[in-house]
Amino acid sequence: MSEWRKDPLVGRWAIIAPERAERPYALEKGELLCPFCEGMESCTPKEVLSVRRPGTLPNQPGWLVRVFPNRYPALQKDVPLESREDDLYHSMSGFGVHEVIVETPHHAVDFAELPREHLTTVLSVYRERLQNLGEEEGLRYGLLFKNQGMEAGASMSHAHSQIIATPIVPQAILEELRNSVEWYRKKRKCPFCEIVEREGETGERVVLSGDRFMVFIPYAARFPFEMTILPVEHSSSFLEEEHLGELAETLSKVLRGARKFLGTLSFNFVLHNVPYRAQKEEEESYHWHLEVLPTSLRVAGFEWGSSFAINVVRPEEAASKLRLFVESLEGG
Amino acid sequence: MSEWRKDPLVGRWAIIAPERAERPYALEKGELLCPFCEGMESCTPKEVLSVRRPGTLPNQPGWLVRVFPNRYPALQKDVPLESREDDLYHSMSGFGVHEVIVETPHHAVDFAELPREHLTTVLSVYRERLQNLGEEEGLRYGLLFKNQGMEAGASMSHAHSQIIATPIVPQAILEELRNSVEWYRKKRKCPFCEIVEREGETGERVVLSGDRFMVFIPYAARFPFEMTILPVEHSSSFLEEEHLGELAETLSKVLRGARKFLGTLSFNFVLHNVPYRAQKEEEESYHWHLEVLPTSLRVAGFEWGSSFAINVVRPEEAASKLRLFVESLEGG
Repeated sequence: MSEWRKDPLVGRWAIIAPERAERPYALEKGELLCPFCEGMESCTPKEVLSVRRPGTLPNQPGWLVRVFPNRYPALQKDVPLESREDDLYHSMSGFGVHEVIVETPHHAVDFAELPREHLTTVLSVYRERLQNLGEEEGLRYGLLFKNQGMEAGASMSHAHSQIIATPIVPQAILEELRNSVEWYRKKRKCPFCEIVEREGETGERVVLSGDRFMVFIPYAARFPFEMTILPVEHSSSFLEEEHLGELAETLSKVLRGARKFLGTLSFNFVLHNVPYRAQKEEEESYHWHLEVLPTSLRVAGFEWGSSFAINVVRPEEAASKLRLFVESLEGG
Repeated sequence: MSEWRKDPLVGRWAIIAPERAERPYALEKGELLCPFCEGMESCTPKEVLSVRRPGTLPNQPGWLVRVFPNRYPALQKDVPLESREDDLYHSMSGFGVHEVIVETPHHAVDFAELPREHLTTVLSVYRERLQNLGEEEGLRYGLLFKNQGMEAGASMSHAHSQIIATPIVPQAILEELRNSVEWYRKKRKCPFCEIVEREGETGERVVLSGDRFMVFIPYAARFPFEMTILPVEHSSSFLEEEHLGELAETLSKVLRGARKFLGTLSFNFVLHNVPYRAQKEEEESYHWHLEVLPTSLRVAGFEWGSSFAINVVRPEEAASKLRLFVESLEGG
């Protein structure tokens, strides 16, 4: 069973999950049999949601997108949330949910190449699962992320994303939220809205700018081609996002542009959302966004030791390169 | 020229250093000519410190340990510290110091295999450079770190460490320090001293325990074989450490034990110290330590997105394995 443990000095929670050490690395093994493929449904835990062709049955072929619990979960749903704390150390049972979203029944299809309509369905599945998990007791945050490519930490090459829903709001989100609320109190304005405005004005870090979504390289980017996708209009939660078709198109474009420019593309993306059951002030201060992190240089001692990043490509330079390649995509 | 940039949402500073994109990756190129080798002194910037055999001249052969500015520095010393800030974004000129410490004149010698006396000299050079940089105006922290092996982000295989001295205290240190001071105010005790006591009592996470230094796997370790080396007696700063011989022996033992156990060893280590010109209360609350991070599983989307770590090896299990291998080292 896994366990939450809190570092007494930095207040950072870690998940100690020995079961995950056993998971196979299909990417390294050649993948003769992929459990994420259509027809292999009996090799995975039972699905919790799927979008299927009419007349097909759960856990049978015929699906377009399929969600099931991770076979090697970092956290478990069926354990009581117990806390053990003494004057130095604090642990909790490994309560939480860990799911896999398989994004296509076909093995060799790249996420960024999925047709717009299919990608829109994928995004709507993200939204639905995040919504459903938010209604479960004890979960305070649902973190949706994708690891594509071995360099990005993926263990399977078949297109998939994951959700880890936790009883604790992740520190990274908490910090953004705290700073956003503080900003809002001072300026009566969401700081992300202010960033959209500024980036739109100067344009120098913008990769793609549409009616509904803006993609840019953050001013203080940690990694060379890190991108942020933000809705242009204020919206604290992806759960309320209605323009999934435009989002699918935006995401596909910037991923294809980045691959065209970089030659290859391993990447992570992570959805940043306001936590479940947020306060009104938090909703007014926070703006959901998607961080896209192409894998590039490794994180070394300095970065671990300092929390400073060293980025060897100026954000403006990165944006101008990516912009060119996104604009040159065939079919727009 | 490089530049400091602050993220307006999370308050995190990044160093934008385009010059570093040009640095060669000798590890990938086969290293026919290594500029860190004895006899190649003219291929590096001029040394700022060296320990040498009597009668030999600076920037000539005859040295045992040699320190010089990084040829591809993340920060520069010869720029004024200028700050540019508007209502959204904040940047500063890339002021700071970036040095390389070459730890042996011989190319194929492994850091952990250096004789105890030589390793003690290396540690005394770390101490001296950190001390000297602390006396320079405008520098608030000196971060000493080592990347060994390509997986750990090293670009050169010849044994070396680096110091990056900065006008800002790194966020990772600042957080530890803030929490330690808070702890101290409540309990009138340094939290690290409390950890030494507790870990010594239970022993379950201890890898090596000596008169002067204790090595253990942190209770909430982020990575499978992450180790912390702490002086047993309270000491806020490595600059005051007198038992460098014992430290050399401890460090060498745990690195050799880890390599014996893991089969191979890429790792980072990072020295955590109280900042330069600390307050008395900070000195009483903080305890210097060395973090040793063997490279293992990659950091993926979840970790980036949440700041939670998923560690697949229980710290107690990791400690018991490493302990065995450290104890079995020949020659103790």
